[in-house]
Amino acid sequence: MSVPVVRPIGAARERLLSAALNLFVYHGVSGTSLQMIADDLGVTKAAVYHQYQTKSDLVLAVMTPALEQMVRLAENAEAQPSVAGRREAALCGLVDLVVENRRMTAVLYADPVVTRLIREHPPMLELSERIKRLITGPDHAVETLVGVAVVGGGLMMVGLDPELADLDDDALRRHLLGTARRTLRIRAPSRRRGHAAVASPR
Amino acid sequence: MSVPVVRPIGAARERLLSAALNLFVYHGVSGTSLQMIADDLGVTKAAVYHQYQTKSDLVLAVMTPALEQMVRLAENAEAQPSVAGRREAALCGLVDLVVENRRMTAVLYADPVVTRLIREHPPMLELSERIKRLITGPDHAVETLVGVAVVGGGLMMVGLDPELADLDDDALRRHLLGTARRTLRIRAPSRRRGHAAVASPR
Repeated sequence: MSVPVVRPIGAARERLLSAALNLFVYHGVSGTSLQMIADDLGVTKAAVYHQYQTKSDLVLAVMTPALEQMVRLAENAEAQPSVAGRREAALCGLVDLVVENRRMTAVLYADPVVTRLIREHPPMLELSERIKRLITGPDHAVETLVGVAVVGGGLMMVGLDPELADLDDDALRRHLLGTARRTLRIRAPSRRRGHAAVASPR
Repeated sequence: MSVPVVRPIGAARERLLSAALNLFVYHGVSGTSLQMIADDLGVTKAAVYHQYQTKSDLVLAVMTPALEQMVRLAENAEAQPSVAGRREAALCGLVDLVVENRRMTAVLYADPVVTRLIREHPPMLELSERIKRLITGPDHAVETLVGVAVVGGGLMMVGLDPELADLDDDALRRHLLGTARRTLRIRAPSRRRGHAAVASPR
């Protein structure tokens, strides 16, 4: 246990995590075994097990890039000086997350195993509530809460829609932002203010 | 195989299907065994197995009321004389479905096992595409398709939002309809036309 584990890096690691995600989308996390991942990659189960001893380790490894992006999103939004700027930056950040991780966001949001994992890990639960609060803003009218629930759920699931699979990233981003702003009654920022408000630290 | 199976009826059947749904929401369909359902009900696995021999049988039994409601929804919408009336009736029907089956719709929509089951059963896939077409209407601009994807996904997932769990059915229905109409740029029908357009055959 005290021996440092050498994680597969680069292409091999990417291949393993990508195979795992594909199987998660199709079979769910519960329905995906390390054996299935090994078969998909044409390696032994021991080779997969050597890298990730438990399903939870593997799920976390698959989710880590998106979770890190969520942390940056929240920090960037919270650094904006106005309520409108914070909402705008959080919404743009969430749309970027969805566009850059089209299929992963649906697993992250809707797979019951991941939902439970998030519920049982206070820092992960807090991160997702923090982003939701930023997008909601100070108005807690029921109408606003329902709008945020529909937009949040809808954005996270959109990557699974086969009709949008061929849409390029820029078009998807633009239309998702327009849809979300209309639903939440958020006015698009003027071009100059907009660029300032959503400037990313990356 | 030719011996007619006596299905549990009434309260016992409701209890079994309700226990199964609760476990599906928490563990996913893949992560729920007949043994877990038996344990939850305090009966033997054989007692559950006597009623549903496979997981698919059980999933279908859980989903059947919602699927039947979807068929009625599509038939009712298709019977409306105008494009606007068909969109309105389909949207109202979908909102009713979501409100009346708050947690089930998320399982129906997002559980990977159910998604695969639907994909592999042409009549179920056709039913869900039929409802989507009714809500989309004749305009297939990318903006419209993105709006429908966000609203569809968002409506189906809304039952899992803990912040809306205490909202009564009428308020949830009213706010979901308002949110969906705003997102899809559908004008609310005038009171008289509205009642005619969404009249349900039930």
